[in-house]
Amino acid sequence: MTSVLTPAPTAATSTVDLGPAVALSCRECGSRIELGPYYACTECFGPLEVAYEFTERGEALRKKIEAGPDNIWRWASLLPVPAGIADTPNINPGQTKLVRADNLARELGMKTLWVKDDSGNPTHSFKDRVVAVALAAARELGFTVLACPSTGNLANAVAAAAARAGIRSVVLVPANLEQQKILTTAAYGGTLVAVDGNYDDINRLAGQIAAEQDDWAFVNVNVRPYYAEGSKTLGFEVAEQLGWRLPEQVVIPIASGAQLVKIDKGFQELIDLGLVDSSEYKVFGAQATGCSPVATAFKAGTDTVRPVKPDTIAKSLAIGNPADGPYVLDVTRRTGGAVEDVSDEEVIEGIKLLARTEGIFAETAGGVTVATLRKLLATGQLDPEAETVIFNTGDGLKTLDAIAHVVGPTARIAPTLAAFEEAGLA
Amino acid sequence: MTSVLTPAPTAATSTVDLGPAVALSCRECGSRIELGPYYACTECFGPLEVAYEFTERGEALRKKIEAGPDNIWRWASLLPVPAGIADTPNINPGQTKLVRADNLARELGMKTLWVKDDSGNPTHSFKDRVVAVALAAARELGFTVLACPSTGNLANAVAAAAARAGIRSVVLVPANLEQQKILTTAAYGGTLVAVDGNYDDINRLAGQIAAEQDDWAFVNVNVRPYYAEGSKTLGFEVAEQLGWRLPEQVVIPIASGAQLVKIDKGFQELIDLGLVDSSEYKVFGAQATGCSPVATAFKAGTDTVRPVKPDTIAKSLAIGNPADGPYVLDVTRRTGGAVEDVSDEEVIEGIKLLARTEGIFAETAGGVTVATLRKLLATGQLDPEAETVIFNTGDGLKTLDAIAHVVGPTARIAPTLAAFEEAGLA
Repeated sequence: MTSVLTPAPTAATSTVDLGPAVALSCRECGSRIELGPYYACTECFGPLEVAYEFTERGEALRKKIEAGPDNIWRWASLLPVPAGIADTPNINPGQTKLVRADNLARELGMKTLWVKDDSGNPTHSFKDRVVAVALAAARELGFTVLACPSTGNLANAVAAAAARAGIRSVVLVPANLEQQKILTTAAYGGTLVAVDGNYDDINRLAGQIAAEQDDWAFVNVNVRPYYAEGSKTLGFEVAEQLGWRLPEQVVIPIASGAQLVKIDKGFQELIDLGLVDSSEYKVFGAQATGCSPVATAFKAGTDTVRPVKPDTIAKSLAIGNPADGPYVLDVTRRTGGAVEDVSDEEVIEGIKLLARTEGIFAETAGGVTVATLRKLLATGQLDPEAETVIFNTGDGLKTLDAIAHVVGPTARIAPTLAAFEEAGLA
Repeated sequence: MTSVLTPAPTAATSTVDLGPAVALSCRECGSRIELGPYYACTECFGPLEVAYEFTERGEALRKKIEAGPDNIWRWASLLPVPAGIADTPNINPGQTKLVRADNLARELGMKTLWVKDDSGNPTHSFKDRVVAVALAAARELGFTVLACPSTGNLANAVAAAAARAGIRSVVLVPANLEQQKILTTAAYGGTLVAVDGNYDDINRLAGQIAAEQDDWAFVNVNVRPYYAEGSKTLGFEVAEQLGWRLPEQVVIPIASGAQLVKIDKGFQELIDLGLVDSSEYKVFGAQATGCSPVATAFKAGTDTVRPVKPDTIAKSLAIGNPADGPYVLDVTRRTGGAVEDVSDEEVIEGIKLLARTEGIFAETAGGVTVATLRKLLATGQLDPEAETVIFNTGDGLKTLDAIAHVVGPTARIAPTLAAFEEAGLA
């Protein structure tokens, strides 16, 4: 395996089967290199993304998708994965519920609202999608270890996916991470390394290890272009679940920003391939105020996303220097959307509101999204009459600490009918 | 609403639409009474169950099911629910994954093994199924509050289902319950009552409240016959997911025993209705040794299940006096299966084994099932060559305490490449 900035000869490409993916292309200068474990352009150091040559389209493609498996591999024709991917050992994420949220819509004065609930994935976050695609690419590129730096959801997803695939996982986490997140990752039996440092330290260490260990695929480092494509399936699924059409507005949480950008990319591919009619949609981004560099840039009308030091309970969104920040600005501005941010108090209210109205218990990231939806409505940026989809990307069970001080029993009583009646609960 | 033992006049039946359900019948004496909120026979005090008159069968029914929604309501024709149930606000559980477990099979020396993984339900346990059916019946019978006594999974499921249905929930839990379980239930915003007592105290209190509050449906008390039917869908789904056939062996955890009995009932209904070919299957039950009254009775060859005081980490199975114990003995003996029990240490090993081999992180109940599978193989009671399905009924995220002392980081290092290399992790 060659290093990141020294692509192997083009001839090598012929041995790699990643389905419709034909090259990596630079998002800045457009240069192309062959498929491989590269993430930075050899010309301009810009980020690479997967380029495709789709051979199927329209009705024939739609029928193939509809006849496919009930997980993200129904989209294999549009992902950088081998054709036979559905038959390899996988935790098979995707096809999570699109929940019609009439109760929440009523509370917010909206007409039609849906929640794409990705807490239904195997390890209960959208990370299962991106890891599944990264794993497929990693296998095809000859890697033998699946690795990542993480502070939570990604650690779970990598450890679980590697276990099922029968390969080794190495997960790096901050040593001071909550015990719950340590346990949920350690349960899968891979190598779990507690590092005395913060996430930035760990991320840097991961890059150094990736450069040394030729056969380790760090899902969010050296195979990141493939990994990121997994988020397209969120957009694909919403469109199919709506009956092969696009919603008018979407609200998406921003960590690195890749998810938002890829959902938009997914919508565009569906239009280009004739799977949905072309229709206008607005993309909105959601951040916690304690880590809102993209919202700040959006509001300032600049193209420059200035890094911040995160300070929010929404830890799964706490990336102070989001790699896809500038692309998020492009997408939200191009579509007529916006990027908004909400306080930690609003995040908690958002979690409670979604749980109380729809029975969906979201992690803090989901609380950010619901609270941002409310703020976008209150400020007139989002149209309450237009059909809207919001994305819940993780599960409240993983961020219980965030609500521990605000929810609890209604009453405490002795175990007698008299005590129950005296408490006025009937 | 009338009390449990005083059925309303038969004429009332005509106003209740619970689909193919036509009556309640006593499992002991066979007496029938009309559909209503009753759970004990007026003749002999035996437990009541739902009796049906199915009007569809064979190929036509199969096609209807296959064209139905991607949740338990595809089975509406076989459940005590109104025909329009899929259009009511519901958390829509079911259609969870049937995972081919080749890695685990290899470790255990088995040929074909599947895991029915019910941690994929909305609140991550099979309880979403039974609560969904109980809620449908409760609405149809005129109840306005959904309630339960619980120590965990059921509390989550009732609070979430009621929130989405837009009705009030009242959940009774022991005051000394783990903070995690309190929080996950409280998040949904219903009435949560912490009771100073153990589960038996709370269960008794629930019965007393049910007798006083005419419009409260305690899912596992006064609408229990409907509630229990929800577990049939586990059997239905396995059969459809196998391509409309039955497995040769199933291993099912035992709490009250209702789940095991209803999965068998589901298999029998599929045969009776011509949806699968009649084939022999063996049903095995799994208990933790610290609460194994049914296994004890099975091994002793008696019909009498003697109550025990539970002492096991598998708290969701810790029912010392299981209501369906005798019926579990009937089913396992009739089919040539068995009931086995495993130590808490084996339970933990079972959790780790399933997570390590298949990337499925089960709660303690799932650990009981995996460990029991292993013991049944070791003792020659279960055939390693016969196709086997085991049921994982809940999620490891809810029982982290059980593994806190046995899993953790592989190593702890400083955030440098040198430290990483010295730790011998590469």
